[in-house]
Amino acid sequence: MESVNVAVIGFGTVGTGVARILLEGGDALAARAGVRLNLKYICDTDLTRPRGLQTPPDVLTDSLDRVLSDGSVQIVCELVGGTRIAFDIVEKALRAGKNVVTANKALLAERGMPLLKLAAECDRSIAFEASVAGGIPLLLSVRDGLVANRISSVTGIVNGTCNYILTHMTDGGLSYEQALAEAQQKGYAEADPTLDVGGGDSAHKLTILSWLAFGSPVGFEDVYCEGIDRIQPADIRFGLELGYRIKLLAIGRRNGGGCLSLRVHPAFVPRSNPLAHVSGAYNAVMVRGDAVGDTLYYGLGAGQMPTASAVVADLVDTALGRMGITFKRRQLFCDAAATVRGIDEISSRYYLRFEVLDRPGVLAAITGVLGRHDISIASCLQHEPIDATHVPLIIMTHLAREGNLRRALAEIGSLDTVRPDPATIRVIDDEERPQ
Amino acid sequence: MESVNVAVIGFGTVGTGVARILLEGGDALAARAGVRLNLKYICDTDLTRPRGLQTPPDVLTDSLDRVLSDGSVQIVCELVGGTRIAFDIVEKALRAGKNVVTANKALLAERGMPLLKLAAECDRSIAFEASVAGGIPLLLSVRDGLVANRISSVTGIVNGTCNYILTHMTDGGLSYEQALAEAQQKGYAEADPTLDVGGGDSAHKLTILSWLAFGSPVGFEDVYCEGIDRIQPADIRFGLELGYRIKLLAIGRRNGGGCLSLRVHPAFVPRSNPLAHVSGAYNAVMVRGDAVGDTLYYGLGAGQMPTASAVVADLVDTALGRMGITFKRRQLFCDAAATVRGIDEISSRYYLRFEVLDRPGVLAAITGVLGRHDISIASCLQHEPIDATHVPLIIMTHLAREGNLRRALAEIGSLDTVRPDPATIRVIDDEERPQ
Repeated sequence: MESVNVAVIGFGTVGTGVARILLEGGDALAARAGVRLNLKYICDTDLTRPRGLQTPPDVLTDSLDRVLSDGSVQIVCELVGGTRIAFDIVEKALRAGKNVVTANKALLAERGMPLLKLAAECDRSIAFEASVAGGIPLLLSVRDGLVANRISSVTGIVNGTCNYILTHMTDGGLSYEQALAEAQQKGYAEADPTLDVGGGDSAHKLTILSWLAFGSPVGFEDVYCEGIDRIQPADIRFGLELGYRIKLLAIGRRNGGGCLSLRVHPAFVPRSNPLAHVSGAYNAVMVRGDAVGDTLYYGLGAGQMPTASAVVADLVDTALGRMGITFKRRQLFCDAAATVRGIDEISSRYYLRFEVLDRPGVLAAITGVLGRHDISIASCLQHEPIDATHVPLIIMTHLAREGNLRRALAEIGSLDTVRPDPATIRVIDDEERPQ
Repeated sequence: MESVNVAVIGFGTVGTGVARILLEGGDALAARAGVRLNLKYICDTDLTRPRGLQTPPDVLTDSLDRVLSDGSVQIVCELVGGTRIAFDIVEKALRAGKNVVTANKALLAERGMPLLKLAAECDRSIAFEASVAGGIPLLLSVRDGLVANRISSVTGIVNGTCNYILTHMTDGGLSYEQALAEAQQKGYAEADPTLDVGGGDSAHKLTILSWLAFGSPVGFEDVYCEGIDRIQPADIRFGLELGYRIKLLAIGRRNGGGCLSLRVHPAFVPRSNPLAHVSGAYNAVMVRGDAVGDTLYYGLGAGQMPTASAVVADLVDTALGRMGITFKRRQLFCDAAATVRGIDEISSRYYLRFEVLDRPGVLAAITGVLGRHDISIASCLQHEPIDATHVPLIIMTHLAREGNLRRALAEIGSLDTVRPDPATIRVIDDEERPQ
C-alpha cells in the first residue's frame, strides 16, 4: 500500500487529536482509506507539555525549516491557528511544494484568497473541511454531493459556544452572563469569548461556506455580524411564548438578480424548523438546492476529535490525489460576479420589544411610525408591567425592509414615552422551513 | 473544458430528471464541476411517451447496442430499475469499458457483489450515491467524510413512503389503510406498496449503507426485516402518551467482538431524538463514529429531482476521475470478516400491548412469565376497556434479549386470559440518542 508522509504543525488540541488517529488508529485507517498516512513530523515550539500521547522518536521537532526542507513530506497540516504565523507557514509550505490541510477558519476567511491563488500557481491544494462545522462533512457535501444544484441558501448554527449559551439561557432560565460563565467553566467558551459570542467565528465560517455554496469569492468583510451578548432572558421567554427559540444563525442567501446577502445574527427560529431543536454544542446547517430541495447536516462543530476527524478526511483525500483533482478542476469561484447586499437591503420579519410608558396613545404612536415606514404589524402583545411606570410591548412584524425598520426605530427613539434601545430580533420563517 | 459523453439508460422519472439537469442546466453545471457532461444518448424502449423535456435530435435511441458500441461514451447511467434487465445492462456496460452510475438499490443489494467484482476486473467504477437516501449525500459523507472513523452505528429513516404514512397516522389519527390510500393518491406510494411498507426497500438501502459504514460485504438476506402494515392507531396513541413517535428505522450496529446486527422494523423513537421529528417524505440517517460522535444527514430521500441530484453528483465524480480513484483505492470491504447476528441475539427495550381479560391475576401471570425469561419491566399502563371483556395492558421493558422475549410471548400466547398476537414494538433509547 502506498504511504504518504504527513507533517502536523501545531501540537495543540486538534493537532494532538490528528496525531492520535494517525498513530493509534493508523492500521485501521490505512485499511479503510487505501493509503497509509505516515506521521513523519509533529512540529511545535513547545515540545515538553504533556499531551497524553506516545510519539515515536524523531517525530517531534521545533524546526519548521526541517519539516519544509524534507522533500519526502507531501502534506503539511497547519493547526497553529491565528492569521499571522499560520499564513507564513501555509505560504512557505506551498512554495516548498507541499499540499496543505488546515482547520483555520480565521486564516481562510481573512487572508485565504492569496493563499488559494498561490496554491493554484504552485499546482498544490489547500483542503479545509475542518474549518466549518468541525466534524460534519459539510463542505464535502456542498461542494461535491450537491454539485448538481444551484444553491439558493445556507442557514445554520455554526458556533457551538453560542448555541450552548443560548440553550442554557432557554432551558435553564439563565442570564447571558450566567450561561457564559457556565460555558467557560465547562470549557465550551474561551476566557476571552469575543470571537464566539460576537459572531465573528460564525462569520468566518459563513465566508468559507459561501465560497463553495455560491461559487463566489466573498470576503469576511461582506458578512453582516451581530452577536448574542445583548440577548435578554425576557426575549427568550417571549420567544418561547410565541413558538420560537433564539439561535445564532449564519445565513447566506442568493437573491433575485444573483445578489447575495450574508449575515450572522440571533434569530427567532420557529419550532417547526429542525434548527430550533439543535441543542448544546451541536451545529447544524440547512442547505437548499434547486434540485435536491432542503438538506440538513448535523453534528459536533468543534472539539478535539470531531475536528481531527475532518482534518484526517482531508489528509486521505489529498493523499489519494482526489483533492488535487478537485482543487484544479472544480471551478470554486465560477460565479465570481456576485455582489453582496448590505443589511439595509434585506427583508425579514422582526420581533420588537419596547419598554413603554403605560399611558394611552403610546401604542398608536409606535404603530403610526412603523406604518409610515411601510412596516406592517403581524401581532402585538402587551404584558405585566416591568416597573412602576413601564410595560413591555412586543410587536411581530410582517416582512419588512431592514432599512425601513432602522429609520422607523430611529424615529421611535425620539418619542419620550418609549425607552431607548428596543430589543430587535430577526425572525426566520416559512421561507427557511423545509417544504 | 474537458467534455465527457454520458448515456442515460431508462427514460423514466429519474432518467428524465437527470436529462433535465444535463440539458437545461448544462452550462452552469460545467462551470461548477470543471467538466462538461455531454448527454450523448437517452436509451429506452418507449421513446414516444411525452416527458415534458426538449431533447436534441439523435439523442434518443432504443438500441442499447448502439450506446454500448459507441466508444466515445464513457459513462453509462443505469436508471431502468429492477434486478434482471438492469443487471444485464450494467454487466454489458462494464464489459464494454464504460463506467457505471446507478440509482438501483434492489440491483445492488440483491445482485451487486458480482457487478462490483466485475467492475474491479474491468478497471471501471460503479457509483451509487442515489441508491440510498436519494438526494442526501449520505454515502459520500460516510465513505469519505467520515473515513477517519470506526463507525459503530447507522440509524435512519430511509423510506419516505413509510414515513409519510406513519406521519399521517400520528398527526392525522388515520388508520394504516387510510394513510396508505392517501399516500397512493398523492403519489407517495406505489399501487403495489409491498416493497416499501414491508420494509424491503429500507433493507436494500441498509445493505448498501452497511458496506460503506462497516466495510463489510453484507448481503440483503442478512437484514432482519419487519414492515409497518401491522401498526395500529392504538400503538401510535400509546406511544405519544409515553413520549415516543413510531418510525420505520433501518439500524446497523457494530457490536462487541466485531459482530454486526442489521435490522429494519418500526420503532418507538423518543421525542428527544432528532429522528422523531423527521416528518412526511423526508429521510434522515444518524451515523455514529468513534472520533466524530453523532452526525445526522437529512433531506428528501426520493423523487425525481432529489434522486437526479445524486446521480449527477456521481456523474461529475466519475467524469473527473475521482470515482475511479475511490473505487480502486478505497478498501470498501476491508473488514470482510464481520459476521451478522440474528435478530434473536439483539438486545432492545420493548413496548408490548396485550389485550387481556379484565380479571384478577392476569397481570401477575404475564409478568411472571416475563420474569422467568429474564425480562424486567420498566413500566406498566392499563387503560379503559376495549370492549365488554378485554382491557389493553401496556408493558415497557428494560433491555432484554429478543430470543428471550419471543419465548416469553409464545408462553403468554398459551394463556387463555390473553388474546393472541400482542403488539410488540422495539424502543430505541439513550444509546441511539446524541450524547
